[in-house]
Amino acid sequence: MSVTAYDPSNVFAKILRGEMPAETVYETDKVLAFMDIMPRADGHVLVIPKTPARNILDIDPNELAELAKAAQFVAKGVMKAMAADGITVQQFNEAAGGQVVFHIHVHVLPRWTGVSLRPHTGAMENKDILAKHAATIRAALTAMQAGG
Amino acid sequence: MSVTAYDPSNVFAKILRGEMPAETVYETDKVLAFMDIMPRADGHVLVIPKTPARNILDIDPNELAELAKAAQFVAKGVMKAMAADGITVQQFNEAAGGQVVFHIHVHVLPRWTGVSLRPHTGAMENKDILAKHAATIRAALTAMQAGG
Repeated sequence: MSVTAYDPSNVFAKILRGEMPAETVYETDKVLAFMDIMPRADGHVLVIPKTPARNILDIDPNELAELAKAAQFVAKGVMKAMAADGITVQQFNEAAGGQVVFHIHVHVLPRWTGVSLRPHTGAMENKDILAKHAATIRAALTAMQAGG
Repeated sequence: MSVTAYDPSNVFAKILRGEMPAETVYETDKVLAFMDIMPRADGHVLVIPKTPARNILDIDPNELAELAKAAQFVAKGVMKAMAADGITVQQFNEAAGGQVVFHIHVHVLPRWTGVSLRPHTGAMENKDILAKHAATIRAALTAMQAGG
């Protein structure tokens, strides 16, 4: 198994460097969480580490552990904010594994009974809708950080 | 958000107690990894913590971190053993989120270019095929543990 080197020109690296915008919902010194601009469900959030890693095949195990903890925190906030009935977590590795952006990321998808995930059409979500969902999720996570 | 209590009568709790068989590929004092008996891809492995937790909404963050590290180790072994081109990781929470067995588990799915995941039909895989894949994956993980 050969692992391809990390390429810092990927979109999430640009977001981390502030070269591209994102609807951020959570940030620590180690992770950033923001809205997926092509959401497969309302409230679809991505959680990424700030350190460069391509995917699960090359990330430092301790960085992955921090990423998992952050994804859990975000999942709880998304569940609450979006009044979801469940959460689907997905994490894709290499193109064959479904990966499109080669900076490791965890998909946190709120789910509701009887509602399927939308297909990945490549269509961008309306900015106002993304901003509205981001504000709701951000508020829930801020309340949780404050012990709420 | 109310979190349903852990029910120790679930199938994975039975596997952990030795009340049901499983094709184990990896085990530590904290985690167990075994073949999914309804694989959506050849070499589909499940990784679970030994401590009771329903899903991402109730698991202790440090236990989740250990589970993530174990899933990474298993993913690397599965990638190698199954000569995969990628890995898809899925983790389902609550029925609406796709969860069927209510002991938290991480799906590690080897992927190959051009090969879709099989639908979840509920059909059980042939035992000999499961045993063959388990042996291959177990050997890769054992070699990795030995520093190979």
